[in-house]
Amino acid sequence: MEGIEYVKPGEIEARSFAIIEEELKEHGLVIPEEQKPVTKRVIHTTADFDYVKTMVYAPDAIETAKKLILQGADIVTDTNMALAGINKRALARHGGEVHCFMADEKVAALAKERGVTRATVSMEFAAQLNKPVIFAVGNAPTALIRLYEMITGGEFRPAFIIGVPVGFVNVEAAKELILKTDVPYIINRGRKGGSNVAAAICNALLYELGR
Amino acid sequence: MEGIEYVKPGEIEARSFAIIEEELKEHGLVIPEEQKPVTKRVIHTTADFDYVKTMVYAPDAIETAKKLILQGADIVTDTNMALAGINKRALARHGGEVHCFMADEKVAALAKERGVTRATVSMEFAAQLNKPVIFAVGNAPTALIRLYEMITGGEFRPAFIIGVPVGFVNVEAAKELILKTDVPYIINRGRKGGSNVAAAICNALLYELGR
Repeated sequence: MEGIEYVKPGEIEARSFAIIEEELKEHGLVIPEEQKPVTKRVIHTTADFDYVKTMVYAPDAIETAKKLILQGADIVTDTNMALAGINKRALARHGGEVHCFMADEKVAALAKERGVTRATVSMEFAAQLNKPVIFAVGNAPTALIRLYEMITGGEFRPAFIIGVPVGFVNVEAAKELILKTDVPYIINRGRKGGSNVAAAICNALLYELGR
Repeated sequence: MEGIEYVKPGEIEARSFAIIEEELKEHGLVIPEEQKPVTKRVIHTTADFDYVKTMVYAPDAIETAKKLILQGADIVTDTNMALAGINKRALARHGGEVHCFMADEKVAALAKERGVTRATVSMEFAAQLNKPVIFAVGNAPTALIRLYEMITGGEFRPAFIIGVPVGFVNVEAAKELILKTDVPYIINRGRKGGSNVAAAICNALLYELGR
C-alpha cells in the first residue's frame, strides 16, 4: 500500500522513539538526559515538538517521582480520560492506585452548592486520602488553583504535582502559581497540555521502573 | 491571586471559545462556518491552532455525521481514553453506543497469533456490529489501514471515519489512504491527532444536536 511500511506491532513504539530522537538532533533540540523519557513520551503522544521548550522540571523531579511511586504513592487526576490512560497495573505493582473524583455525585453536588468547579472540590477530596499523592492535572486550572491555596494555607501538601492543564482561561497563570511553591513538579508552561499529556507523563515515570 | 481572573464554572467553556474566535480573527485564520464547532472544539482540547490548517472534511461531513447519530449509529474507537472521553449519555439519547474492543482478550489473543496490532483486529470486530458505525480513530494508523483494506476489498463499509491518529510511523500515509476512499470523513492530515482529539470531534458533533 502506498507509503505504508510494515513494522512489527511490538516494534512500532521503539521506532517512533528513534524517529523522535533523530528529529530532536536535526532541529538542535536538547533535552537533559534524565528528562528524556518523559519529554519524549509527551512528544510521542502529541507529535508536537513544542513541548521541548515549555516543559519544566523541579530539580531531581524524575528521581523524586520515581521514589514516590516505589513507596506506593497514589495518583489523583482531574479527568476520566487520564484515569483511563494511566497504566493502573504498572502503578498497582508498587502499591499505588489511580483516583479521579470528577464523576463522584457528592463532588458535583458540593461544587454546584458552592459555585466552584468540580475540579476544585475533587482536589479537596484527594487531600483526604491520607497517603502520599502525585497529582496529575490535565484539564482544569481550577484544580491547580485549589492545590495552590491548600499549600500556601498550610492545609495540605501534595507529594508531587504534574501540572499540564490545557486551555485558554487561567491555564498559564495557574501553572505559574504552582511554580512558586516548594512542591516538586513537572509542568508544561503555557496553554498546552491535556489529559493525554498527563497520562503520558505518569506512564513514562512508571515505565522507567519497568514495564 | 496573581493573574487569576474569576470566571463562573458554567461560563469557562463559552469564554474559551470566545478567545479562540478572537485569535482566529487576529491571525487571519478562516474556518468554513459549518466546520467551526468541530475545529474550534479541537483547538479547545489541544490549545493548538495548527489544526485549522490540517483538518479536512468530506463535502457535507458535518451534516452526514449528525444524520448518522440521529439515526442511532454506534461509535467505535481505538482507545480506552477516547471511550472515556466521548459523551456516552449524549449518544445514547439517539440510540447509539460507544465501543472499544482494544481491551478484549479475544482481540489480544488473535492479534498475537496473527502478528498484527490489536487495533487491526478491533476493526474486524467492529465490522460485525451490524449497524451503521462511525469510526473514531485517535491512536492507531493500523486501524485506518485495516479499514482501508476492508473498504477496497468490498468486505465492509464504515458509515463515517474520524481519522485522527497521532504519531510517527505510518500515521500520515494511513490518513491519505482513507482520503482515497468514498467513505465520508473528518481527518487531520499529518502527524497530529490523538484520543483527546477523536473524543473532541465526536462530542462537537453530539453537542450540535443539543447538550
